[in-house]
Amino acid sequence: MSRRKADVEILVVGDEILSGQTTDTNSSYAARQLRAAGLEVTRVTEVGDREEAIRSAAAEAIRRARVLLVTGGLGPTPDDLTKEAFATLFDDALQMDEPTLEEIRSRFARRGLQMTENNRKQALLPRTAQKIPNPVGSAPGVHWQREECDVFLLPGVPAEMRAMLDVEVIPRLRGRVATSAMQYAVFRTTALPESEVAQRLQPEIEKRNDLRWAFYPGRGSVDVHLAQSSGSAAAFGAACDAVRKLLGACLYSETPGESLAEVVVQLLTRHAHRIAVAESCTGGLLGARITSVAGSSAVFVGGFVTYDNAAKRDWLAVPEALLQRHGAVSAEVAVAMAQGARERSGADIAVAITGIAGPTGGSEEKPIGLIYLALADAGASWTRKLQLGPHRDLNRTFAAQLALDMVRRYETGLPHGERT
Amino acid sequence: MSRRKADVEILVVGDEILSGQTTDTNSSYAARQLRAAGLEVTRVTEVGDREEAIRSAAAEAIRRARVLLVTGGLGPTPDDLTKEAFATLFDDALQMDEPTLEEIRSRFARRGLQMTENNRKQALLPRTAQKIPNPVGSAPGVHWQREECDVFLLPGVPAEMRAMLDVEVIPRLRGRVATSAMQYAVFRTTALPESEVAQRLQPEIEKRNDLRWAFYPGRGSVDVHLAQSSGSAAAFGAACDAVRKLLGACLYSETPGESLAEVVVQLLTRHAHRIAVAESCTGGLLGARITSVAGSSAVFVGGFVTYDNAAKRDWLAVPEALLQRHGAVSAEVAVAMAQGARERSGADIAVAITGIAGPTGGSEEKPIGLIYLALADAGASWTRKLQLGPHRDLNRTFAAQLALDMVRRYETGLPHGERT
Repeated sequence: MSRRKADVEILVVGDEILSGQTTDTNSSYAARQLRAAGLEVTRVTEVGDREEAIRSAAAEAIRRARVLLVTGGLGPTPDDLTKEAFATLFDDALQMDEPTLEEIRSRFARRGLQMTENNRKQALLPRTAQKIPNPVGSAPGVHWQREECDVFLLPGVPAEMRAMLDVEVIPRLRGRVATSAMQYAVFRTTALPESEVAQRLQPEIEKRNDLRWAFYPGRGSVDVHLAQSSGSAAAFGAACDAVRKLLGACLYSETPGESLAEVVVQLLTRHAHRIAVAESCTGGLLGARITSVAGSSAVFVGGFVTYDNAAKRDWLAVPEALLQRHGAVSAEVAVAMAQGARERSGADIAVAITGIAGPTGGSEEKPIGLIYLALADAGASWTRKLQLGPHRDLNRTFAAQLALDMVRRYETGLPHGERT
Repeated sequence: MSRRKADVEILVVGDEILSGQTTDTNSSYAARQLRAAGLEVTRVTEVGDREEAIRSAAAEAIRRARVLLVTGGLGPTPDDLTKEAFATLFDDALQMDEPTLEEIRSRFARRGLQMTENNRKQALLPRTAQKIPNPVGSAPGVHWQREECDVFLLPGVPAEMRAMLDVEVIPRLRGRVATSAMQYAVFRTTALPESEVAQRLQPEIEKRNDLRWAFYPGRGSVDVHLAQSSGSAAAFGAACDAVRKLLGACLYSETPGESLAEVVVQLLTRHAHRIAVAESCTGGLLGARITSVAGSSAVFVGGFVTYDNAAKRDWLAVPEALLQRHGAVSAEVAVAMAQGARERSGADIAVAITGIAGPTGGSEEKPIGLIYLALADAGASWTRKLQLGPHRDLNRTFAAQLALDMVRRYETGLPHGERT
């Protein structure tokens, strides 16, 4: 493989990563920041705190990439070996840097602490490298400027790594490495399986195979990422327009990281609609999702988690006759729950969920995974019937997601269920 | 480097990982599970959805390790290339597996959907490999049994990967790979910060530095993993006894993966106690956690999510005078909410949560992160006051966790709050 102009590799050092104790978030963060600067991460490697492992992984990466970013192993303890490993690899010498030593000493003194012996090694710097200041912690980073591959060593502590990456590393890279002018868009969809989203977009995927298409499924949601590495803004805009059209009603956001709950709370706020919920098998998940959004108190009155049938009767005035005739898991009871919640709360609309989450509790006529959603406003009510699988956790999450989507569609004038 | 008996490498495939959109949690999870089974992860590599990159990383890993675990790239979309890459690498053919195709078709049919063309490729299996069933999603996994290196391909979707790893892969590995004769114990604790748990265990850590001690903090919980790679069962047992004693009341389980909610539901079931909840700032999270446990219907009557103060008054009969005098976020109102929920539901006990989750809504006397928990039974009530930070999501999760822990302590006769 030839070395591409702007390939970056990341090497994550630390036993705590390999053992699974700590989930590495540094490489995700760095990758996002690098991408925004027009640099692509082509590989991430994680190794333990062993000099040999660090050196061999580094040597391989340096042969492939234009930039190697290394995180971890710059601390004061015996298992911190990154500088040593690279000094050996580059046949460089580590020497004490007095100004750095003094900075470390003052940092401790400022906090009323004494620097310990083992902190001294954090002031050792390679003779042929540049120091990268650490605005947040003790250990400075290191930058070897090398023709074929720039190498950066940064601490593993996330707050320190992020500060040094943003303030020092990326600006240095902009000066030294050719970056691409990438355009990027995110389309967040819900309620369609990944395969169907991809199928809908097939015509545009075939037409525009110069673009990079990526599909990221979640639970009851699929994100589509579109990237154009070279070409006009107009050409990219045309592709985005096509995608919007093809995705239609299942598209709920184009803002990366914006949740369906946030979109729903924004819509309710904008329309000055207050909402209440009535949940059975989801047990509070729907209310929890709505209230995860700061500011939801403007629109969320509250919820009834009527797990027991007696609670459905006593708190929501669901008629006993209805429970007897149709059973708790029915469109009729879902509607009665929604209407009861609406009346009891004074909200403008209410959403209800009742179903058999599993893994037990099903029957021939009402199998596991059968779930009814209902939405009631002042004038009418709508239902939606779901037949999901045997997986309790997945069923509950899906049901809450689709209930949220029902509200989104109601608020945006899209079809949102079967009118009862 | 020579191939060690039980070295495992993990290869994570996916542009969403390299771009930083998704943080890989699969490798952490797998590493923990493998470690518990006596297998060490020596390297984790992340590559994008490109056949060439997958093949070259795989070829290198296969030369070094005894087991290669690959996650990601088994989906139905054009960027899912893992099987193809490995089939090329092993000079194997992918052929349509009719039973798998039928399973995928039924999975879609059960949900009232039609399988799409692109799902068909998920039923392609390599001729010389074994299929690994997927209990949660569409894509089966693949296992090449090879003398020098067993290779497993698993989906990247966390719920699917985890289920298949635990149920299929690790049992297969136990049969095929020499694992170390490790003794392993897990101690799940709640409500203490990691540093304090470590400090409590310090005497035993110093005494038994032949053991491997690992601390895995969660949200409001810390798991301690103890491993002894050689030595008698009696010696290990003695260490475990010491740990139990030192951890005391904060220890809630010694079963890996057993959640606090499961422990609480078991206790309530055993004592034939029924419970209701009243939640404000947690919005339904507590009810959702209790009902995540299959069988919780035996003990959970339901919950009131009284987000608005009017709901506290109208649904739980919290006196207006109390709300005026002490405010919604007070021990008094928490107790009134718990008592109201208990009376309204007919449950034996009720737990209430009221607080300021953030990021706004605080004042000088009632800062963000101030949360009250209350527990009421027929004869008495108890409260607990928490002062957490500014992080909404963390605060809600912690509050629900500590409310669950309050019930655990009540049910096991431990101190569980300030009696009112």
